[in-house]
Amino acid sequence: MSFLPTKSRIAHIVFEHDDRASKNFDLSVLFLILASLFVVILDSEPYLNERYHHEFYILEWVFTILFTIEYSLRLWLSRNKWGYVLSFYGLVDLLAIIPTFLSLFLINTQFLVVIRGLRLLRVVRILKLGRYMREAETLKTALRNSRTKIQLFVGTVLTIVLIAGTIMFIVEGPESGFTSIGVSMYWAIVTLTTVGYGDITPLTPVGKFLSSVIMLLGYAIIAVPTGIVSSELTAVQRKVHHTGNKVCKTCKSRHLDEDSNYCKYCGEPV
Amino acid sequence: MSFLPTKSRIAHIVFEHDDRASKNFDLSVLFLILASLFVVILDSEPYLNERYHHEFYILEWVFTILFTIEYSLRLWLSRNKWGYVLSFYGLVDLLAIIPTFLSLFLINTQFLVVIRGLRLLRVVRILKLGRYMREAETLKTALRNSRTKIQLFVGTVLTIVLIAGTIMFIVEGPESGFTSIGVSMYWAIVTLTTVGYGDITPLTPVGKFLSSVIMLLGYAIIAVPTGIVSSELTAVQRKVHHTGNKVCKTCKSRHLDEDSNYCKYCGEPV
Amino acid sequence: MSFLPTKSRIAHIVFEHDDRASKNFDLSVLFLILASLFVVILDSEPYLNERYHHEFYILEWVFTILFTIEYSLRLWLSRNKWGYVLSFYGLVDLLAIIPTFLSLFLINTQFLVVIRGLRLLRVVRILKLGRYMREAETLKTALRNSRTKIQLFVGTVLTIVLIAGTIMFIVEGPESGFTSIGVSMYWAIVTLTTVGYGDITPLTPVGKFLSSVIMLLGYAIIAVPTGIVSSELTAVQRKVHHTGNKVCKTCKSRHLDEDSNYCKYCGEPV
Amino acid sequence: MSFLPTKSRIAHIVFEHDDRASKNFDLSVLFLILASLFVVILDSEPYLNERYHHEFYILEWVFTILFTIEYSLRLWLSRNKWGYVLSFYGLVDLLAIIPTFLSLFLINTQFLVVIRGLRLLRVVRILKLGRYMREAETLKTALRNSRTKIQLFVGTVLTIVLIAGTIMFIVEGPESGFTSIGVSMYWAIVTLTTVGYGDITPLTPVGKFLSSVIMLLGYAIIAVPTGIVSSELTAVQRKVHHTGNKVCKTCKSRHLDEDSNYCKYCGEPV
Repeated sequence: MSFLPTKSRIAHIVFEHDDRASKNFDLSVLFLILASLFVVILDSEPYLNERYHHEFYILEWVFTILFTIEYSLRLWLSRNKWGYVLSFYGLVDLLAIIPTFLSLFLINTQFLVVIRGLRLLRVVRILKLGRYMREAETLKTALRNSRTKIQLFVGTVLTIVLIAGTIMFIVEGPESGFTSIGVSMYWAIVTLTTVGYGDITPLTPVGKFLSSVIMLLGYAIIAVPTGIVSSELTAVQRKVHHTGNKVCKTCKSRHLDEDSNYCKYCGEPV
Repeated sequence: MSFLPTKSRIAHIVFEHDDRASKNFDLSVLFLILASLFVVILDSEPYLNERYHHEFYILEWVFTILFTIEYSLRLWLSRNKWGYVLSFYGLVDLLAIIPTFLSLFLINTQFLVVIRGLRLLRVVRILKLGRYMREAETLKTALRNSRTKIQLFVGTVLTIVLIAGTIMFIVEGPESGFTSIGVSMYWAIVTLTTVGYGDITPLTPVGKFLSSVIMLLGYAIIAVPTGIVSSELTAVQRKVHHTGNKVCKTCKSRHLDEDSNYCKYCGEPV
Repeated sequence: MSFLPTKSRIAHIVFEHDDRASKNFDLSVLFLILASLFVVILDSEPYLNERYHHEFYILEWVFTILFTIEYSLRLWLSRNKWGYVLSFYGLVDLLAIIPTFLSLFLINTQFLVVIRGLRLLRVVRILKLGRYMREAETLKTALRNSRTKIQLFVGTVLTIVLIAGTIMFIVEGPESGFTSIGVSMYWAIVTLTTVGYGDITPLTPVGKFLSSVIMLLGYAIIAVPTGIVSSELTAVQRKVHHTGNKVCKTCKSRHLDEDSNYCKYCGEPV
Repeated sequence: MSFLPTKSRIAHIVFEHDDRASKNFDLSVLFLILASLFVVILDSEPYLNERYHHEFYILEWVFTILFTIEYSLRLWLSRNKWGYVLSFYGLVDLLAIIPTFLSLFLINTQFLVVIRGLRLLRVVRILKLGRYMREAETLKTALRNSRTKIQLFVGTVLTIVLIAGTIMFIVEGPESGFTSIGVSMYWAIVTLTTVGYGDITPLTPVGKFLSSVIMLLGYAIIAVPTGIVSSELTAVQRKVHHTGNKVCKTCKSRHLDEDSNYCKYCGEPV
């Protein structure tokens, strides 16, 4: 028995999540991703950047090299190499290492920070564990079922935003900061979503009155998406608990209630 | 067979949504509406207006002429001409073209911008497609059912706003920006809806304490409209899914699903 | 048949809402209340007060006299006079007329705030509207049922507010505007309820981090009261639709299901 | 019969909540806790501290001595002394008295204020009464059931915060106040939770557009946790109210209420 693990053993460690070695591998990658993101965040802090620029630079290279090794491993272990490279996770893995190498050739490297931030997406793979996936399924089903209702809702909101923005642009005008319909629409979104920065606020009595109406409207319609998702989740959950999974052997009808003795469609025993 | 389509064919293209030509017509109108709105928004941007004023002017006329052609088409194809002109969509279609023509005669044309914004309402007609309408129906039913409750809620909110506004006007006074009951009520709405601009804020300890109470109240009552809509949507949905009232004549089981042919308990026909 | 209506006819007009005369009476009082509130609000507007002070003064006396007549009518028609005077609406009706009469005697008072407060006391007139609100039953039941849960929730929120306020007072200190635990708690409420005025904001990195945690907490716990009210309303509604109101004549059990043939407790036919 | 109560009688008064003496004891402790917290809050107010420093100091020692007596009592009455000292409430009780004694030896005592604030946790023990506990149970079950969904949700929010923060840091830059990714993430949380202080706001058109998207996203996803908790609470409640699984042996009716003695359909005993 050789000291080095076999390729299939390594593949197991890298791709599976069911024994100790593979779980440790997952945790190490998870730790590396979070640590590298933490360094990116700290590096952007001016006073830390000034002081520890060199240390951050070295750490960044350490992370990049480790991620490169991981990428090579995954590539080597994949049967369908191009399939991996072009898959969603393959691209995310590549984007995790490219910025550092690119920074060797580029001078203006600020936008590379965003790409580094995308490393967070790599966390998703590791969280792809049973427990989370099942729950994500329920959420996804509820969201998919309420998709049309939500589109309708977003359409309504955007209509209100455009009309409210236009009216406030006329009523308040550039003196109050409503310099264009675009800015007015930004204000309308800030108001309707109850964020309320206060960078632009109505100054005239008419503007204040109209704003109040918009706010009460926003307050009222926030109820709608919440209600939609709530009732969808309740429905999905009820279906999961109540609807059976019995199948009629005679007519092949599915989702018969669990307490069925006979198929409700063809009358044959289940 | 003539090259020109018959009048009934044009009517089909304009009014229906079921074949390729009519769908393309819908999409073109949809694109025109959104493009014209986009131009209105950009035109209001001071630095763009300065630079591209001429281009925007020409574009506006192009849109207006195309909308005028569409309006004439619809008028020509309608059997009941006045019925169309005076219908909701007829008026919206007219409002979409009037502002540009009016601007020829008027000097102060700013308020026309609002009317142009109303073009957005034209989008509604095109979205009047099966999928959205069915979902809108559920929402409408839920909102109609909870109308009395929502009126009650709005009444409660306005009562709180009036009383809170009056109290804060007395407590804080003009020095803190609470210059009148009207302004105080505007502040109360800004606070109660959790928008919180920060243009007017309490400065005295008593005012801060009262504001905290109002905020907690707002936080608590935001739950009410959401709860109303949620429970109504749940109820509407339950009714749709869950209407089984069939009774088995043989074993007397009740609440069998409406689509049952046979009793799921005893297997006899319902 | 005398021209003047009988006392019982007047009582009907004043207290009932079921025929034309009584509905007109209701609508007139409703209009008077809203008009008088509108005058109070406008009167507080400095530039309107300056200009129309005299007109507002006359209008105020007109409203007061009309409300006095209404009060006298109700008093005269009530069988239990003291019962009416000391009832909630009796007190509100009295408070609606007292301030104007009191203002005759308080001209030479130095306490302007008292006079101002007195004049604004008229706002309680809005509570007179309560008489016209029915349908509140479902909402009240849901709120009563969820009372304990809401108390628990408010307790949790106040605990978080006290602890967060204390910590932020230590972390940020007076330089950032966190001048005392009281002010810090005010800030915590402003933040937790997502109002976010921005009059006090964290300036230090640690303060910003802690604020972020508090905000996410607030975001998460806003779900709880909403969920409570939603689920209560759903439950109340379900009970209304599902639970019957049949009563067993033998054992006097109530709320038997509508489809009961026999009492589920004693087995006797309903 | 001696004048002094027996040890077991004292234990009853201190630990139980069922007769008059023990309820009075609970209320006294509750009052003491709230009073001591009130003094801590007032003491931090600069102008009160200046004036009444001496009075607050004396009050603080009165509270501490009373709490020390209570602590000694509980310790004396506990069979398992170390068990009490190391229990959650034992530690909270100790933390309630330590700060004042520590302040005798320490000069910089500001951080002791936080520990004093922890006295609030002592209130929890007194509220440990039947009514609240049962409701807290429902809430806890609902929260426990939706734990995975909420973790998933918080993960999603943090991902959005990191990515939005990074992008805004690049787009807006230090001129608009987005001085580092950390600050940008703070801004993203302030925006996404709809708190919206307005201490940092986007100034460029692109930044405003991106912010609008983030706000609408925040507005949309606030629906998700609310929906989760609502549907869980509904599910928990339905289970409690709706567990009828009894079957009538005579007419075979199913889902009879658990408290049925007789079948509601045929009247035979279940």
